[in-house]
Amino acid sequence: MSTPYLATAADLPATAALLVAFNTEYDDPAPAPEWLANHLAKLVAAGDTEVVLVGHPPVGVAVLRYATSIWSDTPECLLAELYVTPDRRGQGLGRALMQQVERLARARGSSLLQVVTGESDVAAWHLYQSQGMDCYEDHARTSRSIYYEKEL
Amino acid sequence: MSTPYLATAADLPATAALLVAFNTEYDDPAPAPEWLANHLAKLVAAGDTEVVLVGHPPVGVAVLRYATSIWSDTPECLLAELYVTPDRRGQGLGRALMQQVERLARARGSSLLQVVTGESDVAAWHLYQSQGMDCYEDHARTSRSIYYEKEL
Repeated sequence: MSTPYLATAADLPATAALLVAFNTEYDDPAPAPEWLANHLAKLVAAGDTEVVLVGHPPVGVAVLRYATSIWSDTPECLLAELYVTPDRRGQGLGRALMQQVERLARARGSSLLQVVTGESDVAAWHLYQSQGMDCYEDHARTSRSIYYEKEL
Repeated sequence: MSTPYLATAADLPATAALLVAFNTEYDDPAPAPEWLANHLAKLVAAGDTEVVLVGHPPVGVAVLRYATSIWSDTPECLLAELYVTPDRRGQGLGRALMQQVERLARARGSSLLQVVTGESDVAAWHLYQSQGMDCYEDHARTSRSIYYEKEL
């Protein structure tokens, strides 16, 4: 199995194509791949974004965003996007990506890894739970953390 | 009722005291208020953080974090913290803070306002829903968005 690797500038066109395929699969709007590749290059250059790929050409991608915590002087890491192409699912690539994500977040000194997923996406939350992630905010494990949003 | 206002550097010591009271009320660890005031000043100066207060001295606080979207060239706004002191709850201050938060996010050109809250915190999700925020990721409104985290 391929080992996930940090994308370089040369990998960003293929990354953009994967991310557009991701949104297309889930009927979400997506920008043009050329625009997205250029935009990702700016985000990576700004220092708050890392892109992890698996496969040559890539068949899986994770996008990480970093922001300094309010409560300490360490960065928190948000797993903003995670995608494996349909024909390569069930082969451990998501798990391999997650392990590399955690290594990278630790290497940046992150105190926290965060992700949002749908409660009907059983494969996703099984994956996150297998990596030690937790959605309960209380010790009694009765109250999950729910993500709300509003488009402006 | 007081109108919420954007904190200036002079307001950050009182802001830090409120945020420490927040964590203390919910049995979460908190840094020293002096350290937190200085840290908030650095986050605000870096440009990705806004602090909204209500009351003189403040009895309510909202902390906003901004990050450029992956999918467009606009900032997304995360409501990272929202707190009103226990003796001032039920007086509309949370709603006033939320209205000011949305105004500020729109003024920065934000495409999205985001927040995470516990499913047992009925007052919080009533407040967010009253402001048009939504936790369902699907049109059928059967699958909520769940936030997972892992301390590293």
